[in-house]
Amino acid sequence: MAGSELDDLRAVYEPLTQSVRRLIDVTIRTHADAATVAAVKDRIDCASDELSESMRDGSFGLEHTRGGEPMVWGNVVIGVRNPAAPPLVVHHEPDGRVWAEFTLGAAFEGPPGHVHGGVCAMLLDHVLGATAHKPGKPAVTGTLTTRYRRGTRLSRPLRAEAWIDRIEGAKTFAVGHIADADGVTVEADGVFIHPRNP
Amino acid sequence: MAGSELDDLRAVYEPLTQSVRRLIDVTIRTHADAATVAAVKDRIDCASDELSESMRDGSFGLEHTRGGEPMVWGNVVIGVRNPAAPPLVVHHEPDGRVWAEFTLGAAFEGPPGHVHGGVCAMLLDHVLGATAHKPGKPAVTGTLTTRYRRGTRLSRPLRAEAWIDRIEGAKTFAVGHIADADGVTVEADGVFIHPRNP
Repeated sequence: MAGSELDDLRAVYEPLTQSVRRLIDVTIRTHADAATVAAVKDRIDCASDELSESMRDGSFGLEHTRGGEPMVWGNVVIGVRNPAAPPLVVHHEPDGRVWAEFTLGAAFEGPPGHVHGGVCAMLLDHVLGATAHKPGKPAVTGTLTTRYRRGTRLSRPLRAEAWIDRIEGAKTFAVGHIADADGVTVEADGVFIHPRNP
Repeated sequence: MAGSELDDLRAVYEPLTQSVRRLIDVTIRTHADAATVAAVKDRIDCASDELSESMRDGSFGLEHTRGGEPMVWGNVVIGVRNPAAPPLVVHHEPDGRVWAEFTLGAAFEGPPGHVHGGVCAMLLDHVLGATAHKPGKPAVTGTLTTRYRRGTRLSRPLRAEAWIDRIEGAKTFAVGHIADADGVTVEADGVFIHPRNP
């Protein structure tokens, strides 16, 4: 029952992560007065103290369950334990296409009311890279080019999609985009490389 | 005393934001057991409830002090009220060069121990764009290309730097990079556009 160890760990830590994700959002948006903010800050510091009594020395990295299942739970794009991650759930189709559907709130803002162009680049880097990524055979970004057709609005359903254009040796050439209900907002192409010694 | 209103607001909200930033980090790294995590989660939910009693309908956007000073405090890269932002402090030199020095922790992870390539793209988008950005005359990204020379390590002092290559009408062509103590890790070039109707 390897699946259940993963599920158990997830059941412990994912709700906490989601709560912190909501806290990020309200911290940006709150109009609370100075006294309320100071009192809340003290309680958050206590929470952090408690959680940090026993913790990893560095980042989460790549951990495995006792059953050998990989967890990249600290990842800034897909990490289910990273409150700063949207997080994206990346789906792989049999034909090699990769996609994710998501909505981005106040924490991802650039131009007022819009997703930061850099966030679009970050998510496209991950989704395009996912076309090249294989279990135990990671791919790193060589180059990435993003072309912005128009602004991407916050709080709208978005879809990122990518596919392989061609493979040349260790290099995967991928293309893709982010789209909202009215069509593509940002396009990208990139070269992803399987390092000889990952 | 326009400056003091800005300082006063910052003194209220910045410490809370920094506390939530620390909470993001320990949420990723904690080994706390299920009972501790559940208790902490409840306290965080209470904190969020309290902060959300009075808050903005949408994102932070661009607000001004009564004295007219702009605040882009929700911005995912530079926002002093966005716990998910590093946040970058962007410096403008008289010759047009732009730079920021920063360190990225566990919340920005991609490959184990390394900054996510997409985060590098996000920060370079912002820093290159800052060469074109003028108060009241924002610039949006047209295209951005990032080239990865090698991995960028977490928890190391980093410096992002950008400058204008040339200007053609409404288009600013900028170049730049991220470097650590051993040199450049990621290079970028981009085209940033001043929209006719910003």
